[in-house]
Formats: sequence, structure tokens, C-alpha cells
Amino acid sequence: MKILKEKTITDVKGIKASGISGGLKKSGKKDLCVISSEGNPVASAVFTRNKVKAAPILMNMEHIKYPTTKAIVVNSGNANSCTGKEGLKNVNIMAQTVADALEVKREEVIVQSTGIIGVQLDMEKVIPAIKKGCSKLSDEGGTDAAIAIKTTDTFEKKLTVSFEAGGKEITLAGIAKGSGMVHPDMATMLSFLVTDLNISKRMLDAAFKESVGASYNMISVDGDTSTNDMAMILANGLAENIKIESPGEDYEKFKEALAYMNTELAKLIAKDGEGATKLIEVEVKNAKDLEGARMCAKAVIRSNLTKCAFFGADANWGRILCALGYSEAELDPDKVDISFYGEGDKIQIAKDGMGVDFDEKKAKEILLKEEVKVDIDLKEGQYSATAWGCDLSYDYVKINGAYRT
Amino acid sequence: MKILKEKTITDVKGIKASGISGGLKKSGKKDLCVISSEGNPVASAVFTRNKVKAAPILMNMEHIKYPTTKAIVVNSGNANSCTGKEGLKNVNIMAQTVADALEVKREEVIVQSTGIIGVQLDMEKVIPAIKKGCSKLSDEGGTDAAIAIKTTDTFEKKLTVSFEAGGKEITLAGIAKGSGMVHPDMATMLSFLVTDLNISKRMLDAAFKESVGASYNMISVDGDTSTNDMAMILANGLAENIKIESPGEDYEKFKEALAYMNTELAKLIAKDGEGATKLIEVEVKNAKDLEGARMCAKAVIRSNLTKCAFFGADANWGRILCALGYSEAELDPDKVDISFYGEGDKIQIAKDGMGVDFDEKKAKEILLKEEVKVDIDLKEGQYSATAWGCDLSYDYVKINGAYRT
Repeated sequence: MKILKEKTITDVKGIKASGISGGLKKSGKKDLCVISSEGNPVASAVFTRNKVKAAPILMNMEHIKYPTTKAIVVNSGNANSCTGKEGLKNVNIMAQTVADALEVKREEVIVQSTGIIGVQLDMEKVIPAIKKGCSKLSDEGGTDAAIAIKTTDTFEKKLTVSFEAGGKEITLAGIAKGSGMVHPDMATMLSFLVTDLNISKRMLDAAFKESVGASYNMISVDGDTSTNDMAMILANGLAENIKIESPGEDYEKFKEALAYMNTELAKLIAKDGEGATKLIEVEVKNAKDLEGARMCAKAVIRSNLTKCAFFGADANWGRILCALGYSEAELDPDKVDISFYGEGDKIQIAKDGMGVDFDEKKAKEILLKEEVKVDIDLKEGQYSATAWGCDLSYDYVKINGAYRT
Repeated sequence: MKILKEKTITDVKGIKASGISGGLKKSGKKDLCVISSEGNPVASAVFTRNKVKAAPILMNMEHIKYPTTKAIVVNSGNANSCTGKEGLKNVNIMAQTVADALEVKREEVIVQSTGIIGVQLDMEKVIPAIKKGCSKLSDEGGTDAAIAIKTTDTFEKKLTVSFEAGGKEITLAGIAKGSGMVHPDMATMLSFLVTDLNISKRMLDAAFKESVGASYNMISVDGDTSTNDMAMILANGLAENIKIESPGEDYEKFKEALAYMNTELAKLIAKDGEGATKLIEVEVKNAKDLEGARMCAKAVIRSNLTKCAFFGADANWGRILCALGYSEAELDPDKVDISFYGEGDKIQIAKDGMGVDFDEKKAKEILLKEEVKVDIDLKEGQYSATAWGCDLSYDYVKINGAYRT
């Protein structure tokens, strides 16, 4: 697998994109992107498990069942969430507008919205914006698309890799946005992947859903789950590799590239969490089962007290052990070892559930790094899991609490 | 039932208390309290469900099984948590020291500790402090005891009520501390009640455990569950009412007083949550079942985004609806009504899962009050639940994240 630094989604065969300003954001920044694909692409997607589902999610859950998916349109500035029947009518108009402009079926269009909740879309701006976005589709629009889906994100999130399958070079590219797990007023988590891989919808779906469990589902900025969260992949087959229709070497290569892509995009979202000063990675090792390992990693990454301690660069192993203790996972507190890693440096702070004498100064140095890893050994079994998150800072409170005062 | 404003635990017949400085807190503030009772008191207690249990919890879980409980000793400044075998040895020495000083059995002594985690108690200070505390026991020591169990609490939490049972006036008094659900470095939730009611251990236990589910178990400051949390009640029978040994009118009167006592102490803890600028009460009405109502109320009270919105006095009903949506409870988002109450004022902000036009200025006025109530109507069934918490402020981050930097 190769990482293609300068490439983007429009470097995938048959993929065009655009990112334009349709006047939905008061700031005048780019707020609408369109992605289209040639051929007869198959797609897979996962949607928020929140019982409160935004209108685009409700429509997409139907559209994703259609055999082919040819276009994606995303607006930022308004989430079209908690908007009732009118919201559903509007999202269907958005899909139809793309379908008409690109001469595809409405069911072949995926629509997403992110931004303020509970406010109806201004369709007098949205429809012309979609038409403009469709007319601007190009082989160079990938970066503009990544910019147009941003809300409180401080940087655009994109990644492109290539790998070989069936004697062909396959390109896999993605764009994503954060930067809170949910912000009905501002943000949500979205990820869109495209590839020219030739693969059946069934195999694409299996690979994608398996990969999501260990990537997007293992990040947390604030423990709140969005009404709009969605991750999807579109594969158009234009690389002309022998079609992947069953497990095998090519399928494994694809899964490896997919795992890398989704994990890296997930980490970018966590790192850009609102107010975050650092990326925190929590690896839980030697748990009795995978579910337990994941519950432990997520309990630590979600703990406000642990997040505050990281903001303060405070080697507070007690808060970490406490979070493990109230997770649903089976564990013996008296066996737990905890160490911190920061860009190469390592320091052990707890052994067998108790503190060890450690150099507070060195621990602080490690915790002041931009990327900190917490290594937790439960010494119970052979299962491991990793979760990603960020610290809880004054700026998180400011962005979410003080911005209106 | 009467509320006795100026009274405290030592106004309960047969109860003596003291609160002294034993040098465990660097500040020199009071850090150890002893409570003793005459007669042959029965007791009931609930303990943290965290799998990481502090040494005093592990010992108390045994001692509470003993038929009688005659003394309580609590130190602040050190939680004796994650301290292994030495911690267990020390808590037993603490109990024995009280037993020797007051000539009671070791099993009749309950011990608690709150403060820093993972550090062994300095027994050379603790033992003389306990002896001093026992020697200072008096009928006026109630307020000193309430002060001595404080950590990051900004005020002492105490309440005394009286009610009639079996033709006698019964006094019920309690002291409590917060002010985070857990702070391995600083705080934990403790509540100690005493009464001169004459009641069997079995009935006391039933009444107390029922009451805890709707009070202490319904508050959240930061979603973290302590290694030391504990609430207990001691009843010495000195009011000489006809002993309560089965359900009946007197039992119901006691349960009513107990519910009031535990709920008010729980609200004081929530109101004094670290960094809190206001007390938030969330009442969820007309849920399908009690468990669902409680899950909904707790999801809203725990949501960081909602807590930040309250700090910013931002009438963000979308975040509340979103939190309801990701709770485990069964609900129909399209039925939910949401209103805010603030000291008499009321404003409805959402109806049938969608926003209503409301006066933003009036909403802000309400949200700037010191006590705000969120009224949520699920329109699904007849069950209700109330949870209490506080907002998420800069000071919470400062207290927990920046205090060491």
C-alpha cells in the first residue's frame, strides 16, 4: 500500500467533485460539495444509531439499498435535522435536483447536511447552489469538496492511498469532517470514501462495516452521538481489476487499505476535536474479549476527568483506573498496568492497580506532546482495542457554551 | 414533616459528633470527623458500583452486615483508594482505633476516606487524629463534622427534619459532601444520615435503598463514578416510638422524610458541582417505564454539549433532543415537548420534536437563573423521573485540568 500525499478524491478514476459557496454560511465560505462517479458504482454506508435521525439520514437509508450510487451532495451550515415532514420533502428535492442535473436516478444520489439543527433549509439558496455545484464538477475539485464540508473543523481532512489488486493499481481516497461527535448547532462526523476498485456491493458492504467498528466507532470528542453521523464508500470498478466477489487475497489487500484509510481519517477527526490541544490514543491490551477491550478504551477516552487531566498534562492514573472500573468490561483492578507514550518517550505510572514511583517532570514532558498514547495492560486475555480522542479544554467550553454570551 | 433550619446531626437523640484538624490536609483545615451513637443502632448503606473499590468501601461492605453500628469516622485529604493490602490494613487499624476509644466492637465502626487516590494514609497523623476526634465528641459537633468531610465543596451540606411516628417526634438529620461524582485527586460523594427512629434493620435497609435510587443515583456532575461513593443511615431507636418492623403508616411517614432528606442533599451536591454556576433539574414525564424515564433524564443531565449550552444560557433544545435520542430509552422523537422553567418563569422551546418560535431573550433570562428546570414530555406513558446536575464551565476545566499547570 502506498500513501499518495498530494492526491485527493478526484485522482480516483471516474470521480469528479466540486466545492462551492452557495450562500448557506453567513461567512460566505464554501458550503456545498458535489461528488460524482462514472460507471455503475456500488456503495455501502453506516448511519448514526441515534433515534433522532436527520432527514438526509432517513432518505439515505433507503437510497443506499439501491444497486448503484452515482452522486453525493453535501451542504454545510444547516443539518436539516429535527425538521419534520418539510425536512424530508426538502432532502428529496435536493436528491432530485442532482439527479436532473447529472441525468441519474434520484435513488442513486446520497445527500448530507451538517450545521444548525431545527431550522428548515433555505431551498431558494440550496437549489441554485446544487445546480452550480453540479456544473462545476471537475477532475481537480477534490480539495474544494473537502473544504466545503467543514464546519468548526480547523483543517480539511483528506487521505489517498493506492494498492494492487488483480494486477491493477487501485486508488482509494476519502474526505471527512468533525469536529465534535455531535454539535446540533455546528458540527457532526461525516466521511466519504471513493475507489475505482471493482467489487460486488455485498463484499464492499462487508469490508466497510467491519472497518468502521475499529475506526469511526472508536473515536469520541465529547461522548455525544450525532443525529447526522454517516460514513460511506463508493466503488466504481473503473480500475478494471478482476471483480472481487468473494474473500481472497485481493479482498484482504482492500481491507488493509480500508482499515488504514478509516483509522487515519478517524484520528484526524479526534485530533481536530473542538478545543483539543492534543490527540489522545488509548490502547487497551490483553482483555478477556474484544468487546471488553473496546468498552475499556472508550470509557477512558470519554472520561471528562481524564480529558481534563490530559489538558493539564497531569499524569493522573487514578482517573484512568477509575474509568476502567466503571466501564461494563470484566477486569481485575489489581492487575492493571498503565504507561504513557509521547513521541518515542515512555513512562510507566501504574503497576498491578497501584501507582509506581515515577518522574513527574518526565511524565509532564510526555503529556505536553501533541500526540499522547495511553497503554493499558489488563493481563486478562489476548484481546486489544484502541480508541482515539482529545483533551477537554477551556476552548471546548467556549465553543459550545460561551459563543452566544 | 418539619424542616429544622438551625438543627444538625447532633440534635438527634443520642448522637454526638466532632470535626477536627488532624494535619491530613496541607491547608490545616478540618479533615477528620467522628459520629457516635448511644443505644444499639441499626444501619443501612449503599456503596459505589465501581469495580475499583477503595479500601474503606471493601471493609464497610463487611461491617454493615453486623447487627449494630455505633460509630462513623471520616477523613478528608486522602481517599485510601488503589492502596492495596496496606490500605486495607490501615482502614482496619482506623476502625480498631475508634473501637478502642469508644469501647465498641470494630465491626460496629464505619470508616470513610476522601481525597487523593493512590497514596497511602499517613497513619502517624491519622491515629492521633482519630483519638482526638473521639475525645472531642459532643452534642454541638454536628456542624464541625459537616465541615470536616468537605474537599472541593464550597459549602457544607446538612439538613435536619422531624416527623411523627408512633406518637413520638422523630428527628432525621444528614450531612453530605460532593462535589464531583468522582475526583480521585480531590473529591467523592458521601452522605451520612442519623435518626432516633426505632426501626428494624431490615425495614431501615428497605426504605433507604428504595430512596437512594431516586436521589443520589439521579445526580451527575461529570459522569464519572467514584471509587469511594457511599451513602448510609444509622437509626438508634432512642425516640422510643413503637418499633417499625413491617410496612404501615409510620413506615410511610419515615419514607417520606427520607425521600425529602436524600433528594435535598443530592440537589445540594449537584448544585455545588465543581465549577457549577447553576443547578439543573431535568424532569422527564410520561415515559413508557420508570427505567426509561431515568435513562432519559440522566442522558440529558450528563451531556457535555447540553451542560455547555446551560453555561452559555443558550436555549439549545436540539442538544437535549439529541441526548434523549442516544439514551437507551424507548421514545418517539416526533412526540417530544421541551420547556424551561426558572424561578416561576416558563418557556416552551420544542413541540412534537421540533422547535417552536420562542422569545430568545426571555429564554436567556430563564437560563441565567441559579436554578433551571428542563421539563421533557415524552407523551408515551405515565412514568416520570427527575435528575439533577450542573453546567460545564471554564472552572470545571480549571479545577480538574489546570490546577497543576
